[in-house]
Amino acid sequence: MSKATQSASNNPVELLETTISQEMRQPLAGSRRGWFHGEHPGVHVPVRLIMQSDTPTLFGGEPNPPIPVYDTSGPYTDPDAHIDLKAGLSTTARASWIDQRADTEQLSAPSSDFGVRRLQDETTSKLRFPNVQPPRKAITGKNVSQMHYAKRGIITPEMEYVALRESMRLDELNQPALQAQHPGQAWGANLPNKVTAEFVREEIASGRAIIPANINHPELEPMIIGRNFRVKINANIGNSAVTSSIAEEVEKMIWATRWGADTVMDLSTGKHIHETREWIIRNSPVPIGTVPIYQALEKVGGSAEELSWDLFRDTLIEQAEQGVDYFTIHAGVRLAYVPLTAKRVTGIVSRGGSIMAKWCLAHHQESFLYTRFDEICEIMQAYDVSFSLGDGLRPGSIADANDEAQFAELETLGELTKKAWEHDCQVMIEGPGHVPMQLIKENMEKELSDCFEAPFYTLGPLTTDIAPGYDHITSAIGAAQIGWYGCAMLCYVTPKEHLGLPDKDDVRTGIITYKIAAHAADLAKGWPGSQVRDNALSKARFEFRWDDQFNLSLDPDRAREYHDQTLPKDSAKVAHFCSMCGPKFCSMKISQDVREYAKQKGLSESDVLDAGMQEKAQEFLAKGSKLYRRA
Amino acid sequence: MSKATQSASNNPVELLETTISQEMRQPLAGSRRGWFHGEHPGVHVPVRLIMQSDTPTLFGGEPNPPIPVYDTSGPYTDPDAHIDLKAGLSTTARASWIDQRADTEQLSAPSSDFGVRRLQDETTSKLRFPNVQPPRKAITGKNVSQMHYAKRGIITPEMEYVALRESMRLDELNQPALQAQHPGQAWGANLPNKVTAEFVREEIASGRAIIPANINHPELEPMIIGRNFRVKINANIGNSAVTSSIAEEVEKMIWATRWGADTVMDLSTGKHIHETREWIIRNSPVPIGTVPIYQALEKVGGSAEELSWDLFRDTLIEQAEQGVDYFTIHAGVRLAYVPLTAKRVTGIVSRGGSIMAKWCLAHHQESFLYTRFDEICEIMQAYDVSFSLGDGLRPGSIADANDEAQFAELETLGELTKKAWEHDCQVMIEGPGHVPMQLIKENMEKELSDCFEAPFYTLGPLTTDIAPGYDHITSAIGAAQIGWYGCAMLCYVTPKEHLGLPDKDDVRTGIITYKIAAHAADLAKGWPGSQVRDNALSKARFEFRWDDQFNLSLDPDRAREYHDQTLPKDSAKVAHFCSMCGPKFCSMKISQDVREYAKQKGLSESDVLDAGMQEKAQEFLAKGSKLYRRA
Repeated sequence: MSKATQSASNNPVELLETTISQEMRQPLAGSRRGWFHGEHPGVHVPVRLIMQSDTPTLFGGEPNPPIPVYDTSGPYTDPDAHIDLKAGLSTTARASWIDQRADTEQLSAPSSDFGVRRLQDETTSKLRFPNVQPPRKAITGKNVSQMHYAKRGIITPEMEYVALRESMRLDELNQPALQAQHPGQAWGANLPNKVTAEFVREEIASGRAIIPANINHPELEPMIIGRNFRVKINANIGNSAVTSSIAEEVEKMIWATRWGADTVMDLSTGKHIHETREWIIRNSPVPIGTVPIYQALEKVGGSAEELSWDLFRDTLIEQAEQGVDYFTIHAGVRLAYVPLTAKRVTGIVSRGGSIMAKWCLAHHQESFLYTRFDEICEIMQAYDVSFSLGDGLRPGSIADANDEAQFAELETLGELTKKAWEHDCQVMIEGPGHVPMQLIKENMEKELSDCFEAPFYTLGPLTTDIAPGYDHITSAIGAAQIGWYGCAMLCYVTPKEHLGLPDKDDVRTGIITYKIAAHAADLAKGWPGSQVRDNALSKARFEFRWDDQFNLSLDPDRAREYHDQTLPKDSAKVAHFCSMCGPKFCSMKISQDVREYAKQKGLSESDVLDAGMQEKAQEFLAKGSKLYRRA
Repeated sequence: MSKATQSASNNPVELLETTISQEMRQPLAGSRRGWFHGEHPGVHVPVRLIMQSDTPTLFGGEPNPPIPVYDTSGPYTDPDAHIDLKAGLSTTARASWIDQRADTEQLSAPSSDFGVRRLQDETTSKLRFPNVQPPRKAITGKNVSQMHYAKRGIITPEMEYVALRESMRLDELNQPALQAQHPGQAWGANLPNKVTAEFVREEIASGRAIIPANINHPELEPMIIGRNFRVKINANIGNSAVTSSIAEEVEKMIWATRWGADTVMDLSTGKHIHETREWIIRNSPVPIGTVPIYQALEKVGGSAEELSWDLFRDTLIEQAEQGVDYFTIHAGVRLAYVPLTAKRVTGIVSRGGSIMAKWCLAHHQESFLYTRFDEICEIMQAYDVSFSLGDGLRPGSIADANDEAQFAELETLGELTKKAWEHDCQVMIEGPGHVPMQLIKENMEKELSDCFEAPFYTLGPLTTDIAPGYDHITSAIGAAQIGWYGCAMLCYVTPKEHLGLPDKDDVRTGIITYKIAAHAADLAKGWPGSQVRDNALSKARFEFRWDDQFNLSLDPDRAREYHDQTLPKDSAKVAHFCSMCGPKFCSMKISQDVREYAKQKGLSESDVLDAGMQEKAQEFLAKGSKLYRRA
C-alpha cells in the first residue's frame, strides 16, 4: 500500500508530494525514452524503446534492435523531466497550438456558477490545486473541435501527433524477420499500411475516429480512438463516499498510465469531486473522461428527481472548463425505454442510466439530456469535449444481453450521433457490459450500422456472470473479441468488479489484462507492425535471453518476479533452461541442438534428411549431443 | 505455503497425512453434496448443490432452489467420506463394474520389468504407496476399451454415469426464469437436449468422444470428453529435477479437483516419477494423464538418442498397470517434418516433440512411436488407456502458428486416429499452443476434418506472446474461442507459464481461469442448462443476496475476500449497496426502486407510461422515492 493511502486523512497537497515514488518515476525495466518529431513545431511524440542484448554468439551473435513501443506514461517515466504535482505537467507545446489557432479566448473567471463558488470556498481551499488557471473557451461563433478542423481540411498538430504515434515507424525497422506478420482478418476495417496525418484527418472528418482533447487540458499527449487505429484501453478510477482520497486517485491515474492506460475516467462520487478532478487533469498526460451526472446528483444530495437541466448545464460547463476531455452522457435513456427494463434479471445497471430512468419516471417526462441535446452540443464544441454517448441500458447479466431495451437505446444513440456531427462534435458510443460470446458480434455490427461507424467503446463485455473476483478475465475474453470485430476502445474491468473499488494492484492487473485484449485484437485485425513485439519476445525466449524476454513483456516486473520465485539466482538469467523442465527436458534447448547441429555441419536444414545422413547421425552421437556446446 | 511444502525433505508418507488440511476437506462455501442415481448398481453421480437463501420479502420473498453444479472434487468435499491417503480412494463401485464384464484378469505381478524392479527396490521403499495392488489386464484376445463396448451396442455403467453427470438434471428444475437461455451458435456440434446413456454410447462408438478410464484406476469417477458435451479442462501438475515433492504433487492434484479440474496430467520429470504417480492415481477421483516419454528419457539418463522401442514399451506397460487413464504419445513427429521447424522463431517447444525430433535426427530413422503404433494400440486396448495424440510440433510463438510443420503433423495424427480406431482405442488430439485470434478457427476446422471429429484438446491457445506472468489470460482468450468452435478439453495455463512451475495458488488461478473459458464456451455453444448458474447469480446480485452471489461464483472464497477488503462488516452482506458506488449511486437499488414502484401501484410495468401517469409521478415524489422502503 502506498504512503498516500496509509495516511489518507492528512492534507492532500502534502500527501501528493510523497505520492510520486521512485518506483513510479523509473523507466520501465530495460526501456529508454525516444522521440519522433513531426513537422508542426512542438510535435514531439514519446516512444518507449525496449533495449535488447545481442544474440549469444552460439546462435549467431547478431545485435537485436531496440523495439519501439507506444508509450502512454507521459513525462513520469522520463528521467529528464521535472515533475511537480503542485504545478501540474508542462502545457507548452499544446497551449501554443491552441493559441495559434486564434479561435479561443482566455476567460477571466470560470463561467459556471459552481466553478466560481468553488474557487471562493474556504472549506476546500486546503484541498485545492494551488495553481488553478482561468479557463479557455471558443470565441463566440467559433467551433474548436478537431472534427470541425478536419471537415475543413485542416491538419492540426494533434492529428500529426497521433499519426506518428500510431505508426511508431515500425515500417522503418528494416528487420524482415521481426516484421513478419500473419495476414489479419479486419472485418471491414480499413487499416492503412502507414498512418499519415491526412488519413487521421479523414477519419476524424468522417466521424470514424476522435481525438479527445479539451482546449483546457493542454497537458495531454494527443491520442486517437477509432476502428482503423490501434485498439485503446481506458482505466476507471475514482473514489466513492465509502473510500479513497485525492492523493490516492492521482496516484492511481499515474500508475494507470505507467502500465498502459490510453485514457482514464474519473468516476468519483464523493465529497470533493471538483477538487479531485482538478488535481487529476493538471497532472494527466492522457485524456480524462467523466460522467457529469454523478456530480450533478451530488449537488442535489442524491435525489435524482431533483436534477434539472440548469444544474446539469452548469456542471457541464464547470467540468469542460477544468479540461475534461470526454463526457459520458446517457442521453439515450428515453422515457419509453424504461419499462423495457422491468422484466430484466438485473434491471438497469448503469449508474447514470438508473439516475436518468428515475428522473424520467418521477417527472413522467422525456430526459433533459435528450431534449436539450443541441444545447449540450453547443457546450461541447466550445471546448472540444468529446461525447461518449452512454449506454444507460446496457445489460448487467448474460440473461439481459442484446435485449429490446439495449438496442432501442443504441438506435437513439445513432440518432444523437448524427445530431452531434451536425455541430461538428466528436462522438464515441458506449457499449456493454455482459454478453455471451455468440452475441458479441451482433453488438459490434449493430453499433457500426446504427451509429454510422462512430467509434465503439465497450466495458468488457463479460462473457459469463459466474466469476466475481475474476471479472477482468471473464471480460478480457469478450473485450479481445469485440476489439477484433472493430471496437475502438476497451474499458478495463478489474478483479474487484462487482465487489469493491480497485486498489493500485487491481489497477495494474486490470490494465495489463486489457493491454493483452487490445493487443490480441490488433494482431487479429492485422494492424501493421503489431507482431513485432511478439516476434522479438519469442526470439529472446528461444535464445534464452531471459532479461530481454522480461523487458519485452507487458509487465517486466511481474515476469521477473515469477521467474525468480523458482530460480532466483542471477546465473539462472543466462541459463539455457528454466525451472519448468530442468536442463534435461528443455525443448527449446533440444530444438537449438537440432538447429545448431545442422549449422555446424554446414548444412541447410533440409540437407539433414539427405541420403547418407546415417553416417552423420553416428557422428552426432559420437560427439555427445547431450551437451550444449559453447562457441 | 502448505505444511507439506515446508518440510519437503521428510518422509512423504508421513507428510501426506498432514497434506489434506481441513481447508481441503470442507465443502465449497454454501454447498452440499447430492447424488443422482442410475440404473446400473453403483452408479451414484455426485452433484454439488449450491444452497440459496430466499429472496428478500420486499422483492417477493420467494424461495430460491439449490443450484446443481458439476462436481469434480470427488469424496474430498464430502463430509461423510472417510479419507485415508495411504489406503487410496474407494474402488468399490467401479471395480465391480469391471469385474462383472468378466473380460479382465488380476495379474500376480506387474508385467513390466521396471514395475517389478521398482516394487523390489529398497531405496524407494519409504516413498512407496503402502498398498500397491497387483494390476489388472484384459484377458488375452479381449479388448476392454469403452469404444469397444460402445461399438458393440453395450451401454456400460461408465456411460450411464457420464450421461447423468453431463445433464445434472437441470431440465427438471421447473424454474422457467432460471432456465431461460439465449440460443447458442454451436458451429455444427450436435448438442442433445438431454444426455442419454445411449447418446453417450453413440458418441463413443463414433470416436467423437472418449471416457478415459483405465481398468487399473477404479478410484475414478467417469467423465466424458467430446465436442457434444460440456467443455472440460485439464490441470498439469508434476515436479521437475529442480523442485517439488510427492506430497506436494498429491496436494496439488486434490486442490486442482477441488476447484474444477476434470482431468489432471502428471508431468513429473524428477527422480521418483513412478512412486509419485502411484500416490496420485490411488488418490485421484479424476482421470490422470501422463507423457510416458518423459519417464523413458529419465531411464536413459536424459539422452534422447538412447531411447528405444523396448524401453518405451516397458514404460507404457508400467504406467498402464499403475492406472494412467491417457497417454500423450507424440507419434506424429515424423522424421520428414523435423526440418520444417528449422526456420521457426521458436523451433520445437513440446518437450516430447523435441525429444523425438532429436531421436529421429540422431538415428536418421522414422520415430518408433510411428512405426510401432499398432503395437502401442495393443497395449492401450488391454487396459483401456486413451490416446492423447501429442502435438509435438505445435507452435510456440505467434509467428509459428498454423505453419507447415504443425499442419503436417496434424494430418499424421488423423491417419493414426483411424488406425487406433481400428483397434477400438479411444483417441483425442492435442492442439496448440500460440495462435493469434484470426487463425484459431482454422485450427479447429482442420482438426475436425483431418482427425474425423476425434475430440480436440488444446493448450490455450495463447493469443499473444507479450505477457509472460499473465499467460493464463492470454490463453484463456484463445481457449474460450476454440472451446466455442468445438474443442472438447482445454489444458490450463497458469500465471507461471514460461517462467516457472505453478504453486498451489497458481493452480487455483489457472483452474478458475479455465473454468471461465470452458463455461463461456458452453454458454456460446448453447449447452442446455448452462445459463442456469449465471441466471441464479445475477438474480442474487440484483436482490443484494451477497452470500448467495459469492457461493454461486466459481471461487466463493476469493469473491468474499475481495468484497470484505472494502466493506468487511457482516452488515454489509445484507446492505442494499456496496463499496463501488455507495448507497446513493447504486444503480441496482434505483432499478429496484423503479420496479417496486410499479408493483406497489398494482401496475404492470408498461402501465407506468400510460396516460394520467403525471399524477402518479407526483405521488412518487411526495412519498419520498429516495428511501428504499421496507416491507
